[in-house]
Amino acid sequence: MKVLVIGGVAAGTKVAAKLKRENGDAQVKILTKSKEISYAGCGLPYYVGNLIEERGKLIVNTPQSFCKLTGAEVETGVEAIALDREKKVVKAVHLEDGQEQEYPYDKLVIATGASPIKPSIDGVDLENVFYMRTPDDADALKASVAKGTIRRAVVAGGGFIGLEVAENLKSQGVKVTVLDMAEQILPGFDPEMAAYAEDHLAENGIVALTSTKLEAVLGEGKVEKVQTQKRAIKADAVIMALGIRPNTEFLASSGITLASNGTVQVNSYLQTNDENIYALGDCAMVTNRMTGKEAWSPMGSSANIEGRIAAKNINGGSFVYPGVLGTGIVKLPGMNAGRTGLTEKAAKEAGYDPITVIGVVDDKAHYYPGAGSFIVKMLADKESGKFLGIQCLGKGAVDKMIDIAVVALSMNAKVTELENLDFAYAPPFSTAIHPFGHMVNILLNKMQGEFATITPAQFAAGEAEQYRIVDASPAPSIEGAPYVNLTDVEGPVDGLGQEEKLLLVCAKGKRAYLLQNRLKHYGYKNTRALEGGTTFNNLDD
Amino acid sequence: MKVLVIGGVAAGTKVAAKLKRENGDAQVKILTKSKEISYAGCGLPYYVGNLIEERGKLIVNTPQSFCKLTGAEVETGVEAIALDREKKVVKAVHLEDGQEQEYPYDKLVIATGASPIKPSIDGVDLENVFYMRTPDDADALKASVAKGTIRRAVVAGGGFIGLEVAENLKSQGVKVTVLDMAEQILPGFDPEMAAYAEDHLAENGIVALTSTKLEAVLGEGKVEKVQTQKRAIKADAVIMALGIRPNTEFLASSGITLASNGTVQVNSYLQTNDENIYALGDCAMVTNRMTGKEAWSPMGSSANIEGRIAAKNINGGSFVYPGVLGTGIVKLPGMNAGRTGLTEKAAKEAGYDPITVIGVVDDKAHYYPGAGSFIVKMLADKESGKFLGIQCLGKGAVDKMIDIAVVALSMNAKVTELENLDFAYAPPFSTAIHPFGHMVNILLNKMQGEFATITPAQFAAGEAEQYRIVDASPAPSIEGAPYVNLTDVEGPVDGLGQEEKLLLVCAKGKRAYLLQNRLKHYGYKNTRALEGGTTFNNLDD
Repeated sequence: MKVLVIGGVAAGTKVAAKLKRENGDAQVKILTKSKEISYAGCGLPYYVGNLIEERGKLIVNTPQSFCKLTGAEVETGVEAIALDREKKVVKAVHLEDGQEQEYPYDKLVIATGASPIKPSIDGVDLENVFYMRTPDDADALKASVAKGTIRRAVVAGGGFIGLEVAENLKSQGVKVTVLDMAEQILPGFDPEMAAYAEDHLAENGIVALTSTKLEAVLGEGKVEKVQTQKRAIKADAVIMALGIRPNTEFLASSGITLASNGTVQVNSYLQTNDENIYALGDCAMVTNRMTGKEAWSPMGSSANIEGRIAAKNINGGSFVYPGVLGTGIVKLPGMNAGRTGLTEKAAKEAGYDPITVIGVVDDKAHYYPGAGSFIVKMLADKESGKFLGIQCLGKGAVDKMIDIAVVALSMNAKVTELENLDFAYAPPFSTAIHPFGHMVNILLNKMQGEFATITPAQFAAGEAEQYRIVDASPAPSIEGAPYVNLTDVEGPVDGLGQEEKLLLVCAKGKRAYLLQNRLKHYGYKNTRALEGGTTFNNLDD
Repeated sequence: MKVLVIGGVAAGTKVAAKLKRENGDAQVKILTKSKEISYAGCGLPYYVGNLIEERGKLIVNTPQSFCKLTGAEVETGVEAIALDREKKVVKAVHLEDGQEQEYPYDKLVIATGASPIKPSIDGVDLENVFYMRTPDDADALKASVAKGTIRRAVVAGGGFIGLEVAENLKSQGVKVTVLDMAEQILPGFDPEMAAYAEDHLAENGIVALTSTKLEAVLGEGKVEKVQTQKRAIKADAVIMALGIRPNTEFLASSGITLASNGTVQVNSYLQTNDENIYALGDCAMVTNRMTGKEAWSPMGSSANIEGRIAAKNINGGSFVYPGVLGTGIVKLPGMNAGRTGLTEKAAKEAGYDPITVIGVVDDKAHYYPGAGSFIVKMLADKESGKFLGIQCLGKGAVDKMIDIAVVALSMNAKVTELENLDFAYAPPFSTAIHPFGHMVNILLNKMQGEFATITPAQFAAGEAEQYRIVDASPAPSIEGAPYVNLTDVEGPVDGLGQEEKLLLVCAKGKRAYLLQNRLKHYGYKNTRALEGGTTFNNLDD
């Protein structure tokens, strides 16, 4: 069996290696346009930030070492230009000399990845316009930073890669502005969570301008300014992190079905509409595990999982790729941001009636050095009680919170099934009431009618306008609001009407919850607690 | 409704607070023997180690602040001495003046906790014999260390608390020896995992003497030596961490059913054999979630979950406590150790036919600063494929690995259901092939016959004696063993018989796996890979 793999980064090398391991008789050949294979694309921002010092560390295998290790062949500098499914050949061109060649296959794997979007605007070819896709891209930016000529940079795009580059430029003393034409940074997070992260970034010296389109790059020879629809911003460099486009042009007249964004459509075995052709990684359109709908997951993690499954299927198996949850995590300065499952918006689009809660919970024992808070949004379906997703921000182990949710979502857990779990606890790691379990309790309290709230989104939308704010803090801290000390409440409170609409506000939401219970006992019928309290909400708006 | 709660640390305060929140009409009173309530027992070793500097940080609430906050009453310095179920009263003595008093109840909660075991040996009352159960205990040890008079200490007991104390004394410059009469430290871990941890501790200056019973403490007035059955050890202090005994003596003639270790037996609603009496926390015997058998879980985390459930049930609910998984985690110097689910031994006792694998996997992207390895043992049931448990050692996020497994075990996952999960990945947090997913793949490879191994336990038991060791490392590194460079194997290897029993050994096990596949292709039928390689196994034994 001749297996031809086009592309040699994550998905391509994984499928080739696994194929050869499972079936030493298979003739496996990787064709790749670039000179390098198997590099750690996700590490590039950290290489720019000098957290990774040697370029060599980013290269997992050279073509030579990969061949020796796996038994698969690799041809570099070869670009696929057409696919002839009838003849079962891929037509390709040797980039060095322009010679064309046909490569036959019995099974073909398309793992051509994606390329960064280069916008059609003026100035995009000026010196000091950078991308962040290949080790060469990173080298170019790193070298310019090292020369000390970049004092101000604009990062175009507030997705994970843009924000990682922003952090790593900031750490090198570069003043960074992030632009995004969307209304928020951090796609895949609900707007109020993204807004919190934007505030956090601003406090840490990274300004994110949202709803701001990059219109042109200005300068004589090299970047001097960036023009947005609002204003011009001084900059010595622009890093384009506007997203990626799948490398599937060569399939144009092949009859292979593409999705609307140009990715290759695959079934659950990762086969295209031609059963002898598979597509994987950044160039493939997979499905969302929860909704069954199309989902694009251009992530190294997905690529590896897909490569393993495709290899087993090419070798005669029939393993099903369960799809992705939309999991993602990013390190920002002093804060990590992670998510998995459906956002509130996505849950509604998928036909769920989501109930959500935002909580601020300790990430480890409050007395242990380095303890901090998680800000967590958790979602469930009102009717079925199905757990739908989580978004988490915090300086601590956000990855743990997300991975717990990944298992829960993958196992189709109801929220009640996530109650009372025997999570790992010791002071250096967690709290006696585990932060995930704590959030489950808060969500269940809300679902079961024991916790009546205004969400931050409702608050920002003005839904609490008819409510009078009551300060539920341990000491008065909200100007202009009546103060009620929870510990002094032993009956109806002077000046608060039992029928009155009262919005109880404290720092994180917990004391408001306690006060709500106390007031309920004394006949108060219309209190709400403000989720996330003053930590999350901006009361001055 | 009068609810009387005996005990005011984790379980007692939690049940009282939740009761009052849910039902402001309930009259809730806590009786407690000590002067303090609601202290962070788990933080005591870190207070000794000065990671927590102020004693006040360990005290979550004073009796006064707790009363004000929750509305529950607290009487301190009152010890329960008898229970009269017919009269529905608890007889108690005021410790200050010896006066006895009867406290009536409609519902009673026994949350009396446990006390450290004081062995019946000579010298146990000498000066500088310490315990680690209350803030006063910790204060005493901390003060002695601060005086600089403790140069050498013996910690009796190699459980979590003993090891935490050992680390925190070591960090203060004290030379520490840990004694345990069991064959291993770290109860709840399989022996080979505990042995690895013992070696790690020794390398970090903490000697653990196993199978070593403490026979006497010797000295004139204060501790000078510790006598074991093997030899005497010089010591300026002894910390007794030999375990705890439930505080249930006062129930002796009450008719309340106790388990063989003196804990109170409860049903799944946390009721004792008297439906008006509940028992929680360290003094209660709960069940193992997987086996349904008795399980003692004297942990702050369990106490909180139990307190919440009991409160809801006392208020008329019928919530079931699902039981514990035996989850635990401990920080050692430079290494964390965690576990959940069944050990190999426990799995066999529960009637499973466990298949196990030990792997050494990266904890985050290998190029990211601070990256290290996890050493993981994973278990499944051979026939059903049910996931049974995990044990994990490593300097990184062991808590994450354990918590992922907690959800999987709680949801009764099969190993195949844990394949291909969309875990969170970015270089600062994880690897593109997530370490948990990686271990699942390795276990599945073994279960599906694609990875033939000798486990470390089998190796240590001599089961590989008929095998010839083959060095599968990237460069020769095992003295006396034939070296085979995986990347040069393109056919049968000179000197290795295709029928010969060959044990392939590399540093971690991965290269041995790759070589096994390659050799299989060339007709080798009897190769085994040594799980955990030279990282985990001691080849010189």
